[in-house]
Amino acid sequence: MEQRVIDTLRKVFELNGFIGIETRAVEQGSSLLKKGETSKEIYLLSRLQEVGQENDTPVEERLGLHFDLTVPLSRYVVEHSGDLAFPFKRWQIQKVWRGERPQEGRFREFVQADIDVIGAGDLPDHYEVELPLVMVAALERLRAFGLPKATVHANNRKLSEGFYRGLGLTDIEGVLREIDKLDKIGADEVAKLLVEGCGADESQARACLELAELTAADGAELAERFDALCAAHGIATDSEAYALARQGLDTLAMIVDEAARIRPGSVIADLKIARGLDYYTGSVYETFLDGAASLGSVCSGGRYDNLASQGNRKYPGVGLSIGLSRLVSYMLHTAGAHANRVSPACVLVAVWNEADRAASNRIAGELRARGIAADVAPTAAKLGKQIKYADKLGIPYVWFPADAADEQAVDEVKNIVTGEQTPADARSWEPDSVYARQTVAIA
Amino acid sequence: MEQRVIDTLRKVFELNGFIGIETRAVEQGSSLLKKGETSKEIYLLSRLQEVGQENDTPVEERLGLHFDLTVPLSRYVVEHSGDLAFPFKRWQIQKVWRGERPQEGRFREFVQADIDVIGAGDLPDHYEVELPLVMVAALERLRAFGLPKATVHANNRKLSEGFYRGLGLTDIEGVLREIDKLDKIGADEVAKLLVEGCGADESQARACLELAELTAADGAELAERFDALCAAHGIATDSEAYALARQGLDTLAMIVDEAARIRPGSVIADLKIARGLDYYTGSVYETFLDGAASLGSVCSGGRYDNLASQGNRKYPGVGLSIGLSRLVSYMLHTAGAHANRVSPACVLVAVWNEADRAASNRIAGELRARGIAADVAPTAAKLGKQIKYADKLGIPYVWFPADAADEQAVDEVKNIVTGEQTPADARSWEPDSVYARQTVAIA
Repeated sequence: MEQRVIDTLRKVFELNGFIGIETRAVEQGSSLLKKGETSKEIYLLSRLQEVGQENDTPVEERLGLHFDLTVPLSRYVVEHSGDLAFPFKRWQIQKVWRGERPQEGRFREFVQADIDVIGAGDLPDHYEVELPLVMVAALERLRAFGLPKATVHANNRKLSEGFYRGLGLTDIEGVLREIDKLDKIGADEVAKLLVEGCGADESQARACLELAELTAADGAELAERFDALCAAHGIATDSEAYALARQGLDTLAMIVDEAARIRPGSVIADLKIARGLDYYTGSVYETFLDGAASLGSVCSGGRYDNLASQGNRKYPGVGLSIGLSRLVSYMLHTAGAHANRVSPACVLVAVWNEADRAASNRIAGELRARGIAADVAPTAAKLGKQIKYADKLGIPYVWFPADAADEQAVDEVKNIVTGEQTPADARSWEPDSVYARQTVAIA
Repeated sequence: MEQRVIDTLRKVFELNGFIGIETRAVEQGSSLLKKGETSKEIYLLSRLQEVGQENDTPVEERLGLHFDLTVPLSRYVVEHSGDLAFPFKRWQIQKVWRGERPQEGRFREFVQADIDVIGAGDLPDHYEVELPLVMVAALERLRAFGLPKATVHANNRKLSEGFYRGLGLTDIEGVLREIDKLDKIGADEVAKLLVEGCGADESQARACLELAELTAADGAELAERFDALCAAHGIATDSEAYALARQGLDTLAMIVDEAARIRPGSVIADLKIARGLDYYTGSVYETFLDGAASLGSVCSGGRYDNLASQGNRKYPGVGLSIGLSRLVSYMLHTAGAHANRVSPACVLVAVWNEADRAASNRIAGELRARGIAADVAPTAAKLGKQIKYADKLGIPYVWFPADAADEQAVDEVKNIVTGEQTPADARSWEPDSVYARQTVAIA
C-alpha cells in the first residue's frame, strides 16, 4: 500500500522535473538545533559503549535523527553547491523521527514526501504557485486509492506581519504561534493567549482573529476584504506596515489567481494559516481533504529565505511536505483502501512429490523469465493443502506439472478464484489481466 | 543509482514470490540485545528533553536503531504469526545503523537488502539452496551496472562443529569466531588465537585450518576430501561428532549439487566460511565478486533455527542479506557506474518572457499528461542561458514555444546533444528512445 503510494508520488515529482535525493538519517546536533521550536522533539543517539558518558559531549556535537527533510536539504545544498544547477528542484521521500511520546494519530517514526526548489541568491516567485500545484496533482493521483479531493489553503507571512505591526503589535512570532492554534482551541482561547502572552489588548486580539477569518478564492476579493479590515482598524495605506502587508498580499493574490487559471478550486487564500515554525518568510501553505477536517493539514510548507546560507550567499527556497504515514493510515482506516499480506506471485507451482521438485522449479523459472512472478509449493503436501496455501497468500493461479511418467500428459493451470482449469505451457501462458499481480508492500 | 539498483532487486525478489515488508527503524533495547556479538554496535536513542536522565532507564527498556533486518523480522513474525501464511517469504530493503566509529568502506548508516523464508515449526531444506540462488539471480541482474560475476561460498555449522568436537575441542563458538578472521589476519595468527584463546593445541589448531582450506564444487568431492581429513585426524566415522558433521555435510552436498544443476558455477562449498554471528545453526553463506576479493563478502547469511519462538513454537529461517551501500559504492568507484546529479526531465520548455510563462507551462503540462517528464525554464533569461541550464541538468531537449504574435508560427524542439531542431506539437511529439530519461536518484 505505502509502496504503491510512494511510487505514484515519485512518478508525479519526476514528471515535473524534480531530482530524487536521499540523505542520511543521522545529522550533527548543531544542524538539528538550528531550527527553533521542533528542536525539542529530537532523538539523540549514543553508542552502547558510551552509555553513562553521553553527557561528556555537548548536544551540538552529538548525533541525532533528522526530524524533517528540510534541515538535511539545507545541509545538502550547501555541501554540494558547486555541483548543482540552480534553481535546484528535488524530491525526497524518507522516514523522519520525532522524540515525542506517541499519541493516537502521531508516530515517533513516519515517512514524509517533500518537494522543494532552492535558488542560489534569488528565487523567482512563480515557484510559489507551481510547487503547491505539483502537490495538488500528486494528491489528485492518490484519489485512485480512495483519497478525497485536496485543497491548498495559502497565506503569506508578510501579510500577517504587516497587519499585526499596523495594529501596533511587536511580538510577531508569538502572535503567529497562537493563531496557529485556532483550529485546536478556538477563537476565545486564542484571544486570551494573545492578551496574556503577546502584549495585545482586547481590541488588537479581536483584529488578529478577524484577519484569521478572512478567506478568498481570487486576488481582487482578497485585496478588497483586506483593505476594508485595515480601514476598520486604522491601518493607513501609506504606512510602512501596510507596505509590508501589501507585498505579501500581492504574492498571495498572484498565487490564487494563477492557480485558479491552471487548476480551478485547488488553492484558496485563507488568512488563518500561520505555520508554527519560525523559518518561513513569505508564502505558507496547508492542505485539507474534503470531509476530513479532523485529520488536519496533510501537506504543508512555505517559502523560506534564510534557512541555508554560505558566506554572503543565501539559498532561498519554497517547499511542501506530505505527511505520508498519516495519509496512508487515513486511507487504510477511512477511505476503504486495505493492506494485504499477500504474495506478489501470480502462480503457485504445485509439487507432486519432493523428487519432482526440480520440474516445478523449472516451470517457475520459465514463468519468471517472462516476467510472471511465481512461487513453488513449500512441500509436496496433499493438493488441497497446496491450494489452501496459495489462497491464503492471495495467489490466483495454481500450476499442475504434467505427470512425468505419462508422455502424453501436459501441464494444467487452475484459477482458484473462478475454478477454471486449462492446459498450459509455461513458455507461452499468460494470466488474465485481472489476475496479474500488483506490487505489494505491507504497511 | 541506488534507487535503480533497489528497483532491480525488488523486481527479482517479487518475481520469486517474496512479499515486501517494512519495519520501523526503532526497536526495544531488549530485542536488540538478544543477538550476541553485534549488540555492542547499537545506537541507543534519547529524547532531547531527557538528556542527563538517560541512565535512569535500563538499556533493555530504552529504544535503539535496528542494526540488521533479521532481528526486526523475528519480532514481526511473532507479532503477526496469526495473519501470515507459512513458510513466509519476505524481502525487505531498508537502512540499518551500527554505532561504530566510521572507517573507510564502513558506514554508520547503510542500506541492506534481505530475503528470508520463515517456517512455523519446521522448514524444508530445499530453501537452503533456493535462497542463495535468488540472490545470485539478483546479483546477476546488477551486472548491467558493471558488477562482476558473483559466487556464493557455502559451509555448514554442523559440519564444522562435528569436526571440531571430533578433534576434542569444546569452545565451538570461539573457534568459529577465530576462523572467521582467516582472510583478514592469515593462518598463522588464527592458529595462535586458537591455541591462546580456544583451548586448542598446535595439532588441533592446524587441523582446524586444514578444514578451512577445503573447497569443493560437487558433493562427492566434498565428502571424499572431508572423510580423508577425518581419517588423518583420527575422527571415527561411527562417532557422535562425525554423525553431526555428516548431517551438515549432506545438506552442503545437496546445496552445491542442486545449485550446479540449476545454475552451474554459482555456489561452491568453502569450509572456511564461519560467519561471526552466533545464531546460525546450519548452512552459512558468503558471496564474493570476481576480481574484488578486497571488498569481502557482498551477500551473507545462513540458516537459523532458534532466532524466533513463541511458547513452544519455533520459527526456523533461512536468509541472506546484501550490503547494498557498500555494493553501490563499489559500483560507483570501481565498476565504472556513476551517479549524476541530473534531472529526470526529458524536456526543458523555454520561456521567452515572464508574461508568456503560462504558455510554456501549458506545453509542459501537455507533455507530462503523456508521460514525458518536463521542466520549465526558471527565468526568461537569454536563450543561451536557458540551454546551459538544461545542459547542466542533463536534459536532452529544449522546447521553443511558438511566437504568440505570429499565427503561422509553430513550436520547435531542439536536441541539444545532436543539435537537431524540428517543428513539434506537444500533443504528439515523442523523444528519441535513446534520450528518454531514466529514473534518477543521487547516492
